[in-house]
This record gives sequence, structure tokens and C-alpha cells, in this order.
Amino acid sequence: MNNQRVVIIGAGFAGISAARTFAGTSVDVLLLDRHNYHTFLPLLHQVATCELEPEHIVCPIRKLLKAQPNVQFATNEVKRVDFVSQVIETNNCLIPYDYLILACGSTSQFFGIPGVYEHCFPLKNLENSVNLRNQIIYCFELAQEEADFSRRQELLTFTIVGGGATGVELAGELAELIYGTLVNDYPAIDFRRVRVVLLQAGDKLLPEMPLHLSVYAKRQLQKMGVEVKVASRVTKVMENAVYWEDSHFKNSQTIPCQTVIWTAGVCGNPVAKKWGLVTDNNGKVTVLPTLQVPEYPQVYIVGDLAAPQHEQFPMLAPVAIQQGTTATNNILRQIKGKNPQPMRYQHQGSMVIIGRHAAVANLFGKVNLTGFVAWLLWLFVHLACLPSTRNRFHVLLNWVWSYFSCDRSVRLILPLHPTNQSKPAPQGTTEDGKRVEIN
Amino acid sequence: MNNQRVVIIGAGFAGISAARTFAGTSVDVLLLDRHNYHTFLPLLHQVATCELEPEHIVCPIRKLLKAQPNVQFATNEVKRVDFVSQVIETNNCLIPYDYLILACGSTSQFFGIPGVYEHCFPLKNLENSVNLRNQIIYCFELAQEEADFSRRQELLTFTIVGGGATGVELAGELAELIYGTLVNDYPAIDFRRVRVVLLQAGDKLLPEMPLHLSVYAKRQLQKMGVEVKVASRVTKVMENAVYWEDSHFKNSQTIPCQTVIWTAGVCGNPVAKKWGLVTDNNGKVTVLPTLQVPEYPQVYIVGDLAAPQHEQFPMLAPVAIQQGTTATNNILRQIKGKNPQPMRYQHQGSMVIIGRHAAVANLFGKVNLTGFVAWLLWLFVHLACLPSTRNRFHVLLNWVWSYFSCDRSVRLILPLHPTNQSKPAPQGTTEDGKRVEIN
Repeated sequence: MNNQRVVIIGAGFAGISAARTFAGTSVDVLLLDRHNYHTFLPLLHQVATCELEPEHIVCPIRKLLKAQPNVQFATNEVKRVDFVSQVIETNNCLIPYDYLILACGSTSQFFGIPGVYEHCFPLKNLENSVNLRNQIIYCFELAQEEADFSRRQELLTFTIVGGGATGVELAGELAELIYGTLVNDYPAIDFRRVRVVLLQAGDKLLPEMPLHLSVYAKRQLQKMGVEVKVASRVTKVMENAVYWEDSHFKNSQTIPCQTVIWTAGVCGNPVAKKWGLVTDNNGKVTVLPTLQVPEYPQVYIVGDLAAPQHEQFPMLAPVAIQQGTTATNNILRQIKGKNPQPMRYQHQGSMVIIGRHAAVANLFGKVNLTGFVAWLLWLFVHLACLPSTRNRFHVLLNWVWSYFSCDRSVRLILPLHPTNQSKPAPQGTTEDGKRVEIN
Repeated sequence: MNNQRVVIIGAGFAGISAARTFAGTSVDVLLLDRHNYHTFLPLLHQVATCELEPEHIVCPIRKLLKAQPNVQFATNEVKRVDFVSQVIETNNCLIPYDYLILACGSTSQFFGIPGVYEHCFPLKNLENSVNLRNQIIYCFELAQEEADFSRRQELLTFTIVGGGATGVELAGELAELIYGTLVNDYPAIDFRRVRVVLLQAGDKLLPEMPLHLSVYAKRQLQKMGVEVKVASRVTKVMENAVYWEDSHFKNSQTIPCQTVIWTAGVCGNPVAKKWGLVTDNNGKVTVLPTLQVPEYPQVYIVGDLAAPQHEQFPMLAPVAIQQGTTATNNILRQIKGKNPQPMRYQHQGSMVIIGRHAAVANLFGKVNLTGFVAWLLWLFVHLACLPSTRNRFHVLLNWVWSYFSCDRSVRLILPLHPTNQSKPAPQGTTEDGKRVEIN
């Protein structure tokens, strides 16, 4: 009898976790991703704020799977999946499968707000974070030369939309970059005029955290120079301004700015719907508690794309990793003729870094930490979870360096060529300085 | 009396050296470069061969000049220089100068050989090296999936044209990458079929070195698996083949390959001629021994762009650095009413790394070293010359890591968006895998 063939689409946390769980089995596994590297997404904001090199939060997928001869990898873009005939169509071939794990992740959600797609910088992948880094430095380079007052003010105003973990972490890091490092680079700029604004539609930051942690996060950000506006809903974004209204008083306001960063919403990768799966309002695929698609019991959905019935999991790396393991174990059970088992999620908690010596952590839903201890824990956990030892050494070196020197050294304008087409088109800059939309 | 204003165009070795020599003087200096970073060019080949991250061989220019309040920097593209009215025209403004230092460097020279510009990968700047890295890894990704034998062979053949320092270093590093690291990544590829070919038009490699060092370099490369062909002149390059003839027997031969790397020639940046300066056959500006342009005594040419009368300097970093210092000192003398002095070049030697424990070094034109000692010296000197301590730590970490693990971890396909327009257009890849010419 031939070995069963499992195909995994997507090499994020869930896909890699699923592939690794097949180690030592007699199943033939093929992992597909459009990139040849795995990205450690929780550190994207540190790439965007000149703290880390993009190469330090990614790892070649072939390296991650070196010890597993039964797992093959191919850099390939999946065009279509035929769930009935169990065949995947890529750029250059057709791949049949016995079992399929879909781990295509999520993408930014813009809620149809005018101008968001066209003018905002998302922060969902490596290209996004490098684009954002280039944009931030570029704004300062232009502002330094700009004679017109209001145009200079636009260049020096950075608005972050979304007060969840990504928005809070980015706001803190950005404030540190600007008021800690860039202030020494641009003597001609009056840094009292540089604004970092954080707009949150809900009534508090970090809605999933206990109230006193949200309050702590807001106070810390304000101390660092961030203008935090809660209950502030964005209504429109234009090339040089963001419009928002106060949720209580409904009065409309404007912030003139060149850089609007969108961290306010996330939805499942639209390919799932395109390929014919049933998705919820959020673009996620509704699956059984075993992570199987109801119509196709040999197809599993894991990670941000999965919406298990009657359950709501946070979009966190540990969830994706546990789902990857569950899917693999269930496939192995199916191959042996046993019934797949529902996933049992163990919530380990969540943490958000705000700045130097400042973070919040909620462990196992019970223990709450703030300040120095939470900050140390955040650093330790993220270092430990990085995909390779080599990544750990370089990231640690960067952190130690910037801690003692108060300097962020990756403040380079080094545009990446975008390769990510199914996610929202990021904005970039051309070499002659014009901002362009890349389609 | 107002301070004299000096403008320096180009922040390579010569430009940075000139700017730094103005430290502590009362001259107002403006340094212009199209990038906001300085590139340590001698390590480009290690970026191209997955050994170093691109960010580790560059340094923000503002950081390099932090301690010098009299030196301003602007990221700007110079469009034109009017040497008569002493005005520089950039993208967005006119900049008058009292003294000008032109340090615009060099670019690849293609000698009008058909197809070289269109199909070869140059290795003259950071974008080039990242493009080349992506291309090398991409060829292996495609070859792994390619069923057609001859097409697979084309993908797995890498031809380097030019047996000077760049060509030899790249050939050695590429052989180490392929036969040391990639061999573990691609189990489906027969690595006995992978070819690295080095074509040198002259009769020996490293023509500027003593004969026995050239012989050593050739023997080492051959041991590492590189096919070295001397007296082999390229006559044409096509998309999937390079044509060359033996200089002695004049018989024409072909190597089918997808990747041809051009390191065979260098000429002065063409902007000098475009702006009306008198250049020699090699595009370099003929200058007085004081580095002044004969027609415009307040204009200095330094680095690869300068061709001092009656003298021939190698295109090396130490030459550029000494020329930058000379130009600055001569300007300071002119301001004080003294005569500029001719440059006195002190040759410190040159070194070429070939591979692990293998290098050649010629010190002060007298002492010749090969093997382990030369290799250690090469590493030490290049580490010491890196622009910042932080660069040194990261590069050292990478070197130590890859020495002990025999692994090159930056084997990523992470396309850079090219920003360098006045240098030859590099080739890149699009996200759907087609090679494209970027104009």
C-alpha cells in the first residue's frame, strides 16, 4: 500500500506546527507556501520601527524541516483547490492529496471604510513591515527639507488605527523610535511637533485584557508621548488626512497626516471563499470541533482561517500551533481508522509590550502582570519562541544593543519588492520620492 | 564673513572619508546621496551568497556623521551640476556651493558585448547582491520541480564572468553555498550536475596579484568544485546561454545557463560625462595630482570616478578613503589661501578570500600570504573596517555561526525593489516566477 499523501497549504505557525507533528510517521507530506521562509509575525512591529532586521524574524522553511525526510517543501502559489476531486492546482502543476490542511492565515479587514485600502499601511506580513519602516524614515527625510509648515506637519504625524495588541505595541515602539533615536538624526526638525496618534473605536485599549491592564497601557503610552483617543471611529482616510468621529458625541474630526497605519481589523484569507468553502462574516471557514470541514472530512482548517463551531479562539500563535498539532493527530487517527477528536485548547495567556520596562501580561486568564516583570517576560517568551537559535542570537544582540545604546540601527530606506498579491496591496515609495499604490 | 560651503555628492568610502575629515573645522558641509545608508561594498559577495544580511553591511549615514554638527546630510538625487555658476540641481531644490567634491563611484562596464546588459547580473551595489541571492535560491527552487533535463541543467549552471577579486571571491563563496549548504536543502537535485563556471578573459586569475597567488587561487577554486576557464572571452550572452571563445584557439563555445554574473569590467559613473566633465575611455574624470578638475579648481573628484594624471590607482577602498582625505585637506588649504598639494598614495596591499581557510594577500606590494593566515587576516581586516561596531558584532556572529554550523542562514527569496537608476538595471524576479528586466 502506498503512503497516504497529506498536503499543507501555508507555512505560518499552524502549517509548520502541523508539518512538524508528522515527524517520524510514514505519511508523505508536502508543504506549500508562496515564500521560501517562515515569518515570526509577533515581531513585525519591531521590524517596522527599525529595531530588527527583516531577516531576523524569518527562517528558511527548508531549514525548519531539515530533520524530517517525509516532509517535502515547494515554493509555489496555489491557484485553486478542487475539494471534490481532491486536487490542488498550482502555478505549474496539479497535486492530488488524500488529506489537506489549509493554513492560509488572515488578512487585513477594512470594513468598507472609504480610502482605507488605498491609503493605509497594513501590518500583516514582512513586506508590510518593511514598507512601513521605509515610509516612517522617508517622512522624516522629506520633512527635514520641507519649507511649507502644514505639509511638514502632515509628514510628521503618524496615526495608528486600532487599539488591539498590534496597535498598542506599534504605537509604543514608534514613540520610542521617534523621541529616542530619530530626535538625534534630524536637528532641523522640532520634535515637539511630531505626533503619534492612536485611534481606538472601542471604549478601551486592549479589549481582550482586564480593565486595569488597559488603563496601564493607556497611561504608559501617554507618558511616552502617544495621543491615545478611545471611542474614536475612523470614517474616511484620504491621502493626507484621516477623518474620525467621537462615538459618544458624534462630532467629526480630522487629523492631517501622510501616514495612517491600519491594525483595526483582521479577516480570514479570501482564498477560502474563492475556492468554494463556506465562510462566516469574517471570511473564516466554519469547521467542526475536530477542525474538519463538514462537507469534506479529509480537509482540515487551522490557524486564523479556522472558525470552529460554538467556540471562539483568539487569533494568537499558540492557538494556531495547537490547531496544527490537532489536525495532524486527527489525520493520523483517520488513517488508522479511528475517529478524529475535538481540539482541546489550553489558553496560556497573552502579552503586549508597550516600551522600555513596560508591558502587560495576562497568564492563563488568571495572573495579571504589568511593568518591568511583564516586560522581561515578554522579551523572554518571544526570544524563546523564535524559529531558530540563530534568530535568537541576532534578536538578542539587537535588543541588548538598543537597550544600552538607546539607538535603533536599522533606520534604512531599503524598499522590498512586494510579492504578496492575495493580501492587501501595501503602499510603497518610488526612488524619486513619490508615494505610489502598488497593485 | 560667512562660512565656506562644501557639497559632497556620494556617500561611499571617498565621500564619507571626505566628510569626516571636515570634523572640527568651521566649514559648512552638505553631503548628498540617493540612499540614506552607506554600503560596505567589499562584502557584497557575502550578501549575494546568503552569508550576511543586507542590513549588516550598511549603516545609516546620519549615524556615521552624528558627532559632526558642521556636516548636514540629505537623501537626494542630484540631477545636474552647473560647474560654471557653482550650483547643484536636485529633485527639489538648487544648492550653491563654494567647493564641490564629486564621489559618485563607478558602475559596471559591459564593453558593448551583446546581451550582457540585458541578461547578466551585475554585483556593484546592495540591490544587485540581493537580486543575485534571490536568483540563486530561486533557480534551485525551480530546478527541484523541473522535469525537463536540459532546462534543469540551465537552472543549475552559474557562470561568473571576470576573474578579478570580485569574480574569484564570488565563485568561492558560491561553491561553498551550493556544495556546503544547499546540497542539504534539495534532496531531489543531483548536485554532481550543479556547475559553477568562472570565465576569465586574461591568462590568469587576479591579474594584479603575483603569479603564485593567482595559481593558488585557481587551484583552490578547482578543489572547491569551480570550473575555472582562463583565456576565455565572452562574446555574447543570451537568456539561457553564455557564448565564449578561447583567446588562443579562437574556437567558440557555449554554456547553457540561466544565471550569468558580470564582474568583468568597471567604469566611472556616467553622470560625470553627462554633466560636462572631460572623461577618459573608462568614463573616469581626468584630474590634477591634487584631485582638482583642471577647468574648475574648486571641484575635486575622488574615489573610483577619479583618474589622476600620470598615475594609475587600483579601485580599492583605501584609495578612495585617502583621496577623500586629500580633497578635504586641499579645500581647507585653499580656504586658507594656500596651494593644494598632490595626493601621496600609500599602498597597503590587497586581499582576496576564496573559501574556508583559503585566501591570498599581498601586503605593501611585498609580503605575499596564502591559506589560513591570509584567510584570518582577510576576516580580521574586513571586520575592523566595517562602518559601525554594531555591524561588526552581527557580521562576526554570522561568520562564527556559519563556520561551526557549515550553514548559511540567509537563503531567502526576499526581493528588494530597485532604487538605483543611474547604475545598470539589475534583473529581478516577479512574484509569479518570471524573470523580468527592470528599467
